[in-house]
Amino acid sequence: MERNILLTIRYDGSAFHGWQRQPDSRTVQGTLEEALSKFCGQDIKIDGTSRTDAGVHAYGQRASFKGDFGIPTEKIKLAVNNYLSGGMNKLNHVGDVEIIDAVEVPLSFHARFDSKGKTYRYVINNDKEPDIFRRNYCYFIPDDLDIEKMNEAAKYIVGTHDFKSFEAAGSQERETTVRTVSEITIDRKKTSTNDDIIIEITGDGFLYNMVRIIVGTLVEVGLNKRKPEELKDIIEKKDRTFAGHTAPAEGLYLKEIYY
Amino acid sequence: MERNILLTIRYDGSAFHGWQRQPDSRTVQGTLEEALSKFCGQDIKIDGTSRTDAGVHAYGQRASFKGDFGIPTEKIKLAVNNYLSGGMNKLNHVGDVEIIDAVEVPLSFHARFDSKGKTYRYVINNDKEPDIFRRNYCYFIPDDLDIEKMNEAAKYIVGTHDFKSFEAAGSQERETTVRTVSEITIDRKKTSTNDDIIIEITGDGFLYNMVRIIVGTLVEVGLNKRKPEELKDIIEKKDRTFAGHTAPAEGLYLKEIYY
Repeated sequence: MERNILLTIRYDGSAFHGWQRQPDSRTVQGTLEEALSKFCGQDIKIDGTSRTDAGVHAYGQRASFKGDFGIPTEKIKLAVNNYLSGGMNKLNHVGDVEIIDAVEVPLSFHARFDSKGKTYRYVINNDKEPDIFRRNYCYFIPDDLDIEKMNEAAKYIVGTHDFKSFEAAGSQERETTVRTVSEITIDRKKTSTNDDIIIEITGDGFLYNMVRIIVGTLVEVGLNKRKPEELKDIIEKKDRTFAGHTAPAEGLYLKEIYY
Repeated sequence: MERNILLTIRYDGSAFHGWQRQPDSRTVQGTLEEALSKFCGQDIKIDGTSRTDAGVHAYGQRASFKGDFGIPTEKIKLAVNNYLSGGMNKLNHVGDVEIIDAVEVPLSFHARFDSKGKTYRYVINNDKEPDIFRRNYCYFIPDDLDIEKMNEAAKYIVGTHDFKSFEAAGSQERETTVRTVSEITIDRKKTSTNDDIIIEITGDGFLYNMVRIIVGTLVEVGLNKRKPEELKDIIEKKDRTFAGHTAPAEGLYLKEIYY
């Protein structure tokens, strides 16, 4: 009998050429499909909620796939994770992609189309010196960042707007560039070794590179290169050239998908 | 006029096939030699203090090289670091190997032969769940580790001993397997996100895999699989099969070299 399985997936994007399957590159989708096909005994194609770019990480990516296979749903996680961590990191029990959860869902359910929203996390390392061991996991900015002003600017972004100014130039045609950003939080997180700034953005959906362009623009506000109230203007222009730079992929984490 | 330059080097060993130059693999030595040859305008060969294995990291590796070249000593660091960080991580200003310091030393100085000792650091992640983003940077052990007992066992290791039991089987012939370990510290370091155990080992020199075999043996004591006083026996046996497992390369950091 055909089943429909919904996966929750975590990955370190450093060594992947992004999510989407490609014939000659190692991608998250391709890696998972190969493992799942092996354990399901048939050619499995998965549908991910978010096509994350090369270098982008995920705590809570989702993907679904259908098929009529022998392996019980509750065994999928362990089988795939053991297989994917079997290489040089055997003692550490974890590969660079792992299934966190696998559950059976109704056949009508679709991981992408049924998504009601998602949260992205962005990590800025605001220390004075770059940390070589974190270079794939954050955006290093040694200059002072004014969190108050960044929060002020973020208020203009929250709400339902046409976010065309925050979409990568030359993006594919889509129905609308109107999206709803329901929340942005910006917090400083100091530990004994790191001075980080964590930005979290929740919305019903995001245009291509939208989170990274929002972060780049907020960073320019934090650096006092822009005023918080400029955000109003930038949104109204509906033109990518008015927004700030695209923050690097390395700092971005797909945190959670909502259904 | 010929100069002799001593480098201090930091690297993330994850994407390197170890320190030592190899014809068809990316190594730390090969990567640095290529960059240095470019800026010195001649074929540069560097001599590293420690031939770290694939996956091993360094905060304070040292290497020296000689030549008669135009670039001022104080420009070497910036030139090489800019070149090596020029790829996809440009915004983060750091590659996976960087020169921390470059100083001129007497022509008679040799980074390896003049080394009086070194400190290695080993990082164990003692959390209950593995952290996918740290899989290349620590040894994940979810079980309880008794630090007191590990410290007790470490006392047998400190001192001048024949460490043959702690040398990888089949190692190359060397003059002697007697080494002096001057200090071992084992500390638990808890943060809001991580529960780590940091082991630091200082000595005048180490046999092949010696630090990793010491750590593996101490871990087995911490897990109550061995008694601390067994260490005395293990050393006396002068036989690799009596010591514990070799802890994974990912947790090991070459911290400092002494002259």
